[in-house]
Amino acid sequence: MAEGSARRCLRLEPAAAREVLGAADTLLFDCDGVLWRGDAAVAGAPAALSRLQARAKRLCYVTNNSSRTRDAYAEKLRRLGFPPAEPRQVFGSAYCAARYLSRALPPDAAAYVLGSPALGAELRAVGVPHLGPGPAALPGPGPADWTRAPLDPAVRAVLVGFDEHFCYAKLCQALRYLQRGGPDCLLVGTNRDHRLPLEGGAAIPGTGCLVKAVEMAAEREAFIIGKPSRYIFDCVASEFKIEPARTIMVGDRLDTDILMGNNCGLTTLLTLTGVTTLEEVKGHQESDCPSRKSLVPDYYVDSIADLLPALED
Amino acid sequence: MAEGSARRCLRLEPAAAREVLGAADTLLFDCDGVLWRGDAAVAGAPAALSRLQARAKRLCYVTNNSSRTRDAYAEKLRRLGFPPAEPRQVFGSAYCAARYLSRALPPDAAAYVLGSPALGAELRAVGVPHLGPGPAALPGPGPADWTRAPLDPAVRAVLVGFDEHFCYAKLCQALRYLQRGGPDCLLVGTNRDHRLPLEGGAAIPGTGCLVKAVEMAAEREAFIIGKPSRYIFDCVASEFKIEPARTIMVGDRLDTDILMGNNCGLTTLLTLTGVTTLEEVKGHQESDCPSRKSLVPDYYVDSIADLLPALED
Repeated sequence: MAEGSARRCLRLEPAAAREVLGAADTLLFDCDGVLWRGDAAVAGAPAALSRLQARAKRLCYVTNNSSRTRDAYAEKLRRLGFPPAEPRQVFGSAYCAARYLSRALPPDAAAYVLGSPALGAELRAVGVPHLGPGPAALPGPGPADWTRAPLDPAVRAVLVGFDEHFCYAKLCQALRYLQRGGPDCLLVGTNRDHRLPLEGGAAIPGTGCLVKAVEMAAEREAFIIGKPSRYIFDCVASEFKIEPARTIMVGDRLDTDILMGNNCGLTTLLTLTGVTTLEEVKGHQESDCPSRKSLVPDYYVDSIADLLPALED
Repeated sequence: MAEGSARRCLRLEPAAAREVLGAADTLLFDCDGVLWRGDAAVAGAPAALSRLQARAKRLCYVTNNSSRTRDAYAEKLRRLGFPPAEPRQVFGSAYCAARYLSRALPPDAAAYVLGSPALGAELRAVGVPHLGPGPAALPGPGPADWTRAPLDPAVRAVLVGFDEHFCYAKLCQALRYLQRGGPDCLLVGTNRDHRLPLEGGAAIPGTGCLVKAVEMAAEREAFIIGKPSRYIFDCVASEFKIEPARTIMVGDRLDTDILMGNNCGLTTLLTLTGVTTLEEVKGHQESDCPSRKSLVPDYYVDSIADLLPALED
């Protein structure tokens, strides 16, 4: 985006698309709501990505979902007919959180994890010892018992991701590790998403709810890995040579995908196949509030299939 | 406190105490950290309350703890040697939440409760149907199953209190009831306490952490029953004839007890047997910030046993 000018959320018609895509060498895609919805590919999305790849664009996948490994994302892309991706093109908040801890923790220090087996697998892959995934129970009938449960002496970080086994027992242990370690115990959250939307308008509580509960108990703020944090973009940029000015962030959420892209100096492209309507964008655009204006993308499409005409020979 | 003058957190020496207590007809006591710590009475506290009662002062007990019924508090007061109290002198956040819902809900509407059996008992006592206390499990392996679990058609409120069985399954159900009912489904929290302090410096996560998780999932704010909300004082004032100017709030916490007392026009007395130090008060007192100044009490004592000399014949 030109410095100083306001982002205008222009519809990316084929002529403009040819220009915008021509000026880019890398595209970062959010996944759910952009490439697929649940277990079905967005119609035309696999073809659009195949053509982008045929034009030698670098494709990366940037997702706040902490319940899947890089390998699982590569496999899902393959299964839904997207061009083959290597796991290293996938930047999920599970992998990026593991990467963060592998650099921030002293050798042999461990993480207490409120999260999925996938989060555990990514930690294992980068050599960070950990405990926590799976169900947990309070170790006795009363508060005095709860604060006497054993603590692992190696734990120097609490990592909060999506955890269907989140419970009061885990919240207690997280607080105890954070109290024991003080500022020497890291507190990391994979993302702050309030909800995860499902097909048909249903939704389940997102990781942000769990991060917030731990933050409030610990009376401190977590370091956040996922969008809109720029850490997840820094992971991409440290793995590949990325020029922000030649990079497009494609997403369906304003407060994560678009905000991160705007904050990192990328060109931002909203697709309407996910959770956002054009009316919401207009509200932000017409607002006087700088933080709302930072949610406005440069461009939008109804679906990334709309990029196909600009990619014909 | 005199209108317009700043509260000064003066030590309540016997001469001043005689005057302050003489001008009061009602004292509201927080319990844990004021009357007792864990299961032991603060030395001299039972004698101080007995003498206050002998002087025909009305004594009430105002606590954010949602894990005990009024009856259980009356019994604990008796067991620790305090003057006999009737359950109607006890204003716990469990009772007050039940009272709120019994007035706010339409007839036969039910509450989904994240809370203790005591919270359930108080709801039963005022005739509010409810479900929820106790353990809960997710109804299947994946998100699609979670959003298909049965919902009680009568539920028109979600009530969040202290819940050692708090878990992701309950967070899901709370969100579903709130989404189904929209603004017609009430969201009520017993209190926002971050932590519950235990003896020896340990602490467990407080109800505020659980309320926050539900608020974030639901993307709306809960109505709060406990201190510093004035609702809990309004409960006292509707049960007894209370003149705020002739009422003293005695507590150990600035952001709950003292703030509520100050907001409601009561005389506020801090006791140092609980979680607060004089240094914290000084920090607020010297601050320019009005919201910090509102945490400064009128008076303090090291212990409410310090009131004894002023109560001698």
